[in-house]
Amino acid sequence: MASAALRGGIDLGGTKIEAIVVDERQRVLGQARHPTPTDGGPQAVAAAMAEVMQQAAQAAGVKTAALAGVGAGSPGTVDADSGTVTSARNLPGWEGSFALGPELARRLGTRAFIGNDVAVATAAESRLGAGRGFASLLGVFWGTGIGGGIVLGGEPWHGRGGAGEIGHMVIHRGGRRCPCGRRGCLEAYAGRAAMEARARREHKKGRHTKLFALMKERGRTRLTSSIWWHAIEHGDKLATELIDDAIDALGNGIASAVNLLDPEAVVIGGGLGVRFGEPYVRRIAQAMGPHLFDDERPPKVLLAGLGDLGGALGAALLVPAPR
Amino acid sequence: MASAALRGGIDLGGTKIEAIVVDERQRVLGQARHPTPTDGGPQAVAAAMAEVMQQAAQAAGVKTAALAGVGAGSPGTVDADSGTVTSARNLPGWEGSFALGPELARRLGTRAFIGNDVAVATAAESRLGAGRGFASLLGVFWGTGIGGGIVLGGEPWHGRGGAGEIGHMVIHRGGRRCPCGRRGCLEAYAGRAAMEARARREHKKGRHTKLFALMKERGRTRLTSSIWWHAIEHGDKLATELIDDAIDALGNGIASAVNLLDPEAVVIGGGLGVRFGEPYVRRIAQAMGPHLFDDERPPKVLLAGLGDLGGALGAALLVPAPR
Repeated sequence: MASAALRGGIDLGGTKIEAIVVDERQRVLGQARHPTPTDGGPQAVAAAMAEVMQQAAQAAGVKTAALAGVGAGSPGTVDADSGTVTSARNLPGWEGSFALGPELARRLGTRAFIGNDVAVATAAESRLGAGRGFASLLGVFWGTGIGGGIVLGGEPWHGRGGAGEIGHMVIHRGGRRCPCGRRGCLEAYAGRAAMEARARREHKKGRHTKLFALMKERGRTRLTSSIWWHAIEHGDKLATELIDDAIDALGNGIASAVNLLDPEAVVIGGGLGVRFGEPYVRRIAQAMGPHLFDDERPPKVLLAGLGDLGGALGAALLVPAPR
Repeated sequence: MASAALRGGIDLGGTKIEAIVVDERQRVLGQARHPTPTDGGPQAVAAAMAEVMQQAAQAAGVKTAALAGVGAGSPGTVDADSGTVTSARNLPGWEGSFALGPELARRLGTRAFIGNDVAVATAAESRLGAGRGFASLLGVFWGTGIGGGIVLGGEPWHGRGGAGEIGHMVIHRGGRRCPCGRRGCLEAYAGRAAMEARARREHKKGRHTKLFALMKERGRTRLTSSIWWHAIEHGDKLATELIDDAIDALGNGIASAVNLLDPEAVVIGGGLGVRFGEPYVRRIAQAMGPHLFDDERPPKVLLAGLGDLGGALGAALLVPAPR
């Protein structure tokens, strides 16, 4: 196969960078993953992204310069034309603007296309994953934060560039402080970062939990989705309480979004969504029930079909098909 | 002018029925208004709608049978093809389905077109009112309930027929009971019906307020927007508290919708919105501020430009232009 038919996709997450090489039928030929650098700012992150992409290309037996192009999904506000990313949340030292596209193009020797991480993951679920066949779709990515992506009439809806912030819909007026600094956002109750902060406070106050012992056992500094999962499997009370509350919060927030948009389907992805899987997606759907205005006709609520790779696949879809 | 170029528009509200006759440039040639019947069910309401329409036609010097058609905006779930309205909220005895379109056509001797009241009012603001020139728009109708209409990419967005229920977005998880029976909805804090119920409870408990004295003075059985306005003008503490809380609730709820949709503009209409006007629209915009995720680029927040007539004008727009 001519390598010009191959495309690269990079998913830039708060904790990890995932890169893939796909063929024209979106089959994954090579794959690599690396933790996201925690210092060095955007330059260090761009360097790491390029390196992970090169490893994925190597695994696929191709040089990055021979790819039709590379797409990258990034947190923050993305200007697709210039490839610039502004105030990428959850990435330290990325408050300002950084020309990520040109930097990746230079390092990889091919064209680079930048999109918002959640928007590209939603597009991937809509075109290749659980959202196929639905003309309208709400993607909810339950991870470090709570991201949202919208597809209406088969097309992504970006608003003025900032649509989809379902994590910052207010579900409790005057409520808990959110990592974004505002009060009462869905993310303040259901985002992994907010849940970890609450767990740390409770633990400090002397509340018993296995969460931090599990974290140390695994040589981690953060509570990953897998650590939350295992704590709950071990009957950890604090972890169970916090996840139960997160599910109730997600039910309220997603139902609010459904009442406004009335989409055919909701797809639940993200680190926690994918790790907790089907049974928890059903619990979220149940938690939505009491708040749906048209409760006789709920939308389909589905687990993301592309798992961890949705973000990288969606990023690869940013590269225009070669003629 | 040939009367075939004239159209009728009927706005069916929870408290009043408003009918107009407009020419092809949407100029109002005749107008009539009547309280909505409180008993007799859909049949009585349809009869009253036809009568008000006939009065408006008479004022315009035309027979209804000579109109190009009549449009009606109704609460509830509307099936545009059959002209059927199901579970029209705030209208007593209208829990089931009623073929409003055929009934109006029979009584008026012309074609009848039915749309959702809030959707047609939003379309009117988008095409003729404060929303002109904005490709994306959120209409918020602050009255007995809180209705919402959505225009995206210049076109109305109806979802599966039920989109726009901004009044039933949850702004306080586990909070106050809403007239819809659910908990914590925006409408439970900011809808006129919910505010009146709270005022009655407080009044019964012995709390001083001029609201009900004003109501009796005016020979009313409900607290109209005008009564709320006058109570506040007279420094009524309870009325002021309830309206202040409604504005804060609207700020939270509308900001949530903006975070999800990122529209160019928000138009505030409805009985209370129109009666309270510009200064209160500015207060709502201020209340949104702290909850906007992209607070450096808020949407325009504007008072509805068509006042009380927006619903009837939007209903008239349902009638296809005569060839």
